[in-house]
Amino acid sequence: ETIAENTSDKNSSHPSLILTKEGVKDIRAKLGTIPLFDKTLEAVKQEVDAEINAGIEIPIPKDFSGGYTHEQHKKNFLILQKAGVLFQILDDEKYAVYIRDMFMEYAKLYPTLPLHPQERSYARGKLFWQCLNDSNWLVYASQAYDCIYDWLSKEEREHLEKDLFIPFANFISKENPQFFNRVHNHSTWGNVAVGMIALVMDNDDLLNKALYGLKTDSIAADVKDDDGGFIKSKNQKVGFLANLDEPFSPDGYYTEGPYYQRYAMYPFLIFAQALENKKPELKIFEYKDGVLIKAVDALLNLSDKDGDFFPINDAQKGMSYYSRELVTAVDIAYHYGGKNSELLSIAKKQDKVNLDDTGLSIALGIKNNEVKPFTKESITLKDGPNGKQGAISIIRNSNLELVYKYTSQGLSHGHYDKLSFSLYNDGKEVLQDYGLARFVNIEQKGGGNYLKENTTWAKQTIAHNTIIQNETSHFNGKYEIGSKNHSNEYLFNVENKKVQVVSAKEENAYPGTILHRTMLLVNDTTFINHSFVLDLYNVSSNALNKYDLPFYYSGQLMQANFKYQQQSEIKTLGSSNGYQHLFVKALADAPKNNLQFNWLDNNVFYTITSATLPTDKIIFVETGANDPEFNLRRDPGFIIRKNNTKNALFVTAIEPHGTYSPVSEFSVNSYSSIAEIKTILSTKDYSAVSITNINKETKTFILCNTNSNKEAKHTLKINNKDYNWVGPFMYN
Amino acid sequence: ETIAENTSDKNSSHPSLILTKEGVKDIRAKLGTIPLFDKTLEAVKQEVDAEINAGIEIPIPKDFSGGYTHEQHKKNFLILQKAGVLFQILDDEKYAVYIRDMFMEYAKLYPTLPLHPQERSYARGKLFWQCLNDSNWLVYASQAYDCIYDWLSKEEREHLEKDLFIPFANFISKENPQFFNRVHNHSTWGNVAVGMIALVMDNDDLLNKALYGLKTDSIAADVKDDDGGFIKSKNQKVGFLANLDEPFSPDGYYTEGPYYQRYAMYPFLIFAQALENKKPELKIFEYKDGVLIKAVDALLNLSDKDGDFFPINDAQKGMSYYSRELVTAVDIAYHYGGKNSELLSIAKKQDKVNLDDTGLSIALGIKNNEVKPFTKESITLKDGPNGKQGAISIIRNSNLELVYKYTSQGLSHGHYDKLSFSLYNDGKEVLQDYGLARFVNIEQKGGGNYLKENTTWAKQTIAHNTIIQNETSHFNGKYEIGSKNHSNEYLFNVENKKVQVVSAKEENAYPGTILHRTMLLVNDTTFINHSFVLDLYNVSSNALNKYDLPFYYSGQLMQANFKYQQQSEIKTLGSSNGYQHLFVKALADAPKNNLQFNWLDNNVFYTITSATLPTDKIIFVETGANDPEFNLRRDPGFIIRKNNTKNALFVTAIEPHGTYSPVSEFSVNSYSSIAEIKTILSTKDYSAVSITNINKETKTFILCNTNSNKEAKHTLKINNKDYNWVGPFMYN
Ligand SMILES: [Ca+2]
Ligand SMILES: [Ca+2]
Ligand SMILES: [Ca+2]
Ligand SMILES: [Mg+2]
Ligand SMILES: [Mg+2]
Ligand SMILES: [Mg+2]
Ligand SMILES: [Mg+2]
Repeated sequence: ETIAENTSDKNSSHPSLILTKEGVKDIRAKLGTIPLFDKTLEAVKQEVDAEINAGIEIPIPKDFSGGYTHEQHKKNFLILQKAGVLFQILDDEKYAVYIRDMFMEYAKLYPTLPLHPQERSYARGKLFWQCLNDSNWLVYASQAYDCIYDWLSKEEREHLEKDLFIPFANFISKENPQFFNRVHNHSTWGNVAVGMIALVMDNDDLLNKALYGLKTDSIAADVKDDDGGFIKSKNQKVGFLANLDEPFSPDGYYTEGPYYQRYAMYPFLIFAQALENKKPELKIFEYKDGVLIKAVDALLNLSDKDGDFFPINDAQKGMSYYSRELVTAVDIAYHYGGKNSELLSIAKKQDKVNLDDTGLSIALGIKNNEVKPFTKESITLKDGPNGKQGAISIIRNSNLELVYKYTSQGLSHGHYDKLSFSLYNDGKEVLQDYGLARFVNIEQKGGGNYLKENTTWAKQTIAHNTIIQNETSHFNGKYEIGSKNHSNEYLFNVENKKVQVVSAKEENAYPGTILHRTMLLVNDTTFINHSFVLDLYNVSSNALNKYDLPFYYSGQLMQANFKYQQQSEIKTLGSSNGYQHLFVKALADAPKNNLQFNWLDNNVFYTITSATLPTDKIIFVETGANDPEFNLRRDPGFIIRKNNTKNALFVTAIEPHGTYSPVSEFSVNSYSSIAEIKTILSTKDYSAVSITNINKETKTFILCNTNSNKEAKHTLKINNKDYNWVGPFMYN
Repeated sequence: ETIAENTSDKNSSHPSLILTKEGVKDIRAKLGTIPLFDKTLEAVKQEVDAEINAGIEIPIPKDFSGGYTHEQHKKNFLILQKAGVLFQILDDEKYAVYIRDMFMEYAKLYPTLPLHPQERSYARGKLFWQCLNDSNWLVYASQAYDCIYDWLSKEEREHLEKDLFIPFANFISKENPQFFNRVHNHSTWGNVAVGMIALVMDNDDLLNKALYGLKTDSIAADVKDDDGGFIKSKNQKVGFLANLDEPFSPDGYYTEGPYYQRYAMYPFLIFAQALENKKPELKIFEYKDGVLIKAVDALLNLSDKDGDFFPINDAQKGMSYYSRELVTAVDIAYHYGGKNSELLSIAKKQDKVNLDDTGLSIALGIKNNEVKPFTKESITLKDGPNGKQGAISIIRNSNLELVYKYTSQGLSHGHYDKLSFSLYNDGKEVLQDYGLARFVNIEQKGGGNYLKENTTWAKQTIAHNTIIQNETSHFNGKYEIGSKNHSNEYLFNVENKKVQVVSAKEENAYPGTILHRTMLLVNDTTFINHSFVLDLYNVSSNALNKYDLPFYYSGQLMQANFKYQQQSEIKTLGSSNGYQHLFVKALADAPKNNLQFNWLDNNVFYTITSATLPTDKIIFVETGANDPEFNLRRDPGFIIRKNNTKNALFVTAIEPHGTYSPVSEFSVNSYSSIAEIKTILSTKDYSAVSITNINKETKTFILCNTNSNKEAKHTLKINNKDYNWVGPFMYN
């Protein structure tokens, strides 16, 4: 399966990659009439003009990301792409001259370059310390080349292709099969880089490599990348299409998580756009039931109320749908995905568009007032190539967003975080996933690369709001094991907005132990006048274990309903698996029935209420131990610990119940509305809990643990009361 | 000096306190034509209508602030005042009925009340735990009474005055002289409460008490209040006018600082407005050269770029010019202070106005587009009744605001923070003053009252960015000593925006030691392309001492140019004077010449560069030790320590030099532009430092330490170079 030899005329004229001759004509005709397009154009023009005035700088590669040479080459490819677009749209030769001159200098430099002097990568680049960034360069540079292709002389083209583009493409493909021939976001960039330049040059040999990978490589089966992921698995399909097949689920969820999905979406979509222009017969946007368009929708749904991506797996906080990759993604999804007018509201917030047909199209939609709000509902996004490797669910309810993760490992960027959750209120973290231990592109911090604390802390289970057994991470923290397993959905039911429920099981993280966590978002205002989360975490094992369940809150403790002992000398909680990074700040014995922990964060009052036994221990922790270079943030958390336990049901309610204003100095509803939470039944088949509010009214939630059939009828007597219901759970 | 018996007719008709008969007529005529006034009216109407529907609640007093009974009585007085205004403006009797009914219930309850059951206050109230809050109640309730005075029957008025208002006024005045007869914000509230109700009732006896205090009281000279301040000093004048004379400087600076100035401004101004209406012959707005209007301007200048007050002395962070007190202050200052159109821009941001003549006036100004921006310049506000007790200076420069405090003690809310500073960038704290240790009106935290950590930490010198000698706070942390002393301005020169300089001396904080700190805000873009702070802190003593100079930054350390040792067991830095609240996180020997400490906060890169000796120690600290109830925030800092030193010159530069975006992942200028800072001369008479940038260009700053005369000529040879200049400093 390789693509046919190029026969159509369409391909012989340029631009034809991202811009097309007809598109450019249309854009030029509409200039000055579509506000958002014009605004973007003006901003890009000012940016590029400033760079042209500053002059071309092509330093000898030397630095890691964040350092001068890295940032300069990165700036160059971004400006090249923009200058190409400006040349086409504004028809001003100075942009073509600038691109040509810069390309000529790169063509002079490139053949002289050895491998990049920084030796940290499993696939060192030439312009950059890793092939990944070299590929970024080529993806953008190809677009610039396409824009000036016809303007250049044949001799100039031959020179550039011979000395720069073809060796560049060869280097990141056949000379680096361990980089190119994988299923991984790195390879996607590599594949697309080669594919984009192939399309400009009409080079079908390179295009086939891009789409289907190298036919042969010499990668051994056990080679790993810098992050500990396997380079290759057995009978692995490779190339662009394989990278679309495998990491994307049918729901458009990308197994590495939204941070890397965002990063990967740019090459996926820009190459899809180019293929649609050049090889429409591939019907790339229909591939795998339209997964590329679905992926954009999934990605937008993986952001909080104000657009920040949920930082699961390796993910830097603050990345959002305002990023340049998402501008591209939203515009392309709009243009090629049926002009979904909800996307217009995102584009409007982004306040910029692609300077091509897709950007024109979306700016026009906004101009014509077709904008509809992008409403994010509760959603489950299944993981795995066939959607059978667990999922991530987001349960939403006015301001609250509960993110519950029961996916597969997520390739080498995955965390050992089975059945973990995080909670957001009004777009702000309430109970957090730590994110990653890295300062992307900040040279002072380990060259902007992954820090060792990413492995020793951020990936470990204890860095997450989930159960850790015997101070050991899920799958013993071993990628070899984790990557072969995934959690499973037990149920996801959000039909009744009063009680939205998601439940999943993990049976492999700890052999002999089954984890089953069920999370509810309850909005039962006559009972409790604010929404709250109810968390039933069932653990059953064939052996006695120690179970830790942490809650990483932010802000400041206001009050706890139990005595705790601040430690006068602060020591670490443990010595490995992430525990070595936690300072123990205070210790307590849990109260006899219910723990209550009340805190203030971002002027909102929260309370966690948890059913406890007097033998449970409460540990107040703070990150930052064994962190000799201050690579970690100093964040608080508290842990509920059960020792010597086989089976346990952790039942916890989380309420955002009040507000404070430092301006009016009024506190409103600063206390919990929950008087008591009680486990009234816990058997293999059923878990039942009661919640009593401060007016002494009680509600009961019962979950059948062993049958998620929607039609199944249940009858049960608890404390002499009869319960009858249909389906896996009842709330009343 | 008591006011004359009331003779004018004006006083016999109501309303005449905040609203006037003519004013109400004018307001009614303009209803529906002045947007901001109409908007405020509608919002207030909705708020009051909701309360009327909810019904009157007057609980038996029981709780501290934050608790139910406290918050309910507080809500009552705020709603009473608003309902009064609505009755007058909307002429709808339901508001009068509501007020009357509530007053009748209070008149029933009040005579039955013992002292408030909470015993913590030096002056317990009846409705509230302290007379202060009772006074708040009367200040607002008086306005409501004025609004329905004419509407009530004579019998109703007599009943309310006999059972409620007169006993209420007597209780907070003659029955609590230790509260009423002082110079303090508490007494201001007390005086005004009595004065307001006196004006409504035309009771000149009470009015005289309000203006001039009780003629006799029985307060012993050494009685202190809850905060450790003396109740009374010798020959102390008392009453409202004394409270205007003494704590306000001629510049309008209120010695307790902006947080309490904001709190006190409401009674000062609302009473002034009432006096202007009822007793115009007092010319209260001209009193002390118009200090009340100046005070509003001073207060606005004591806020950061986005309006938050600088949290000096006891001050809760987040309080801002958006508070209700400032709405009142700004409107009154506009109306009675010559219609300064810069105030319109503040009112516009506040987005609400007083529902009286002053609010009408300012809303009209906005409607008529007379708005000018309120530009905050570099400013010095002198402290002390005659402006001779030091000052606070704010040096501003585009986004940077340097707050330098060299005031007097600031009464009982003062901190031991001589020559301390804080730095703001774009309205955000960069180097902080801790503020207070209190969660105002949050009942969970010590009843919303001052926490003991306010005394043991927040007030102590080590909680501030200034020098601490021998781990002992200024004045030994003794109010008796601190309140008798103040720092002195040495120079303040902001004429040249390239180098703005402020310098002050403190000679009493440590007997035998002279502290002299000079701070510059340099904006010399051809030398270094961003503004930076230069700090010369000269300490000279007759004995060998240990000197600590802390910098309380926020955010995360990126890089230091010296090796530091993280502590594996975390201990406290000391055992008293605030040191017991600091954990030692890491330790280092200072580098031989220059320390550089580079951090990231709020996506801005900062570097502190400081001239150091290899014998200096660097201590990385974090607050929160010996804090068994988690009352303190966990904030980082680092301390430069010099041991066994008599004289030293600490020279430090602080640069905000770069930015990071988690969305684009670009870092810009992440490193300092300073290569070296050097002390090239340090004598009794002169301090000279050189700053070398990363391009090896050098600038020199020389300060004459002993002669601040602007005309004085200086010649000096340093390292064989001649320097000649006029005035106390040169920069070149
Ligand atoms: Ca957010
Ligand atoms: Ca967020
Ligand atoms: Ca601020
Ligand atoms: Mg994680
Ligand atoms: Mg937070
Ligand atoms: Mg302070
Ligand atoms: Mg900050």
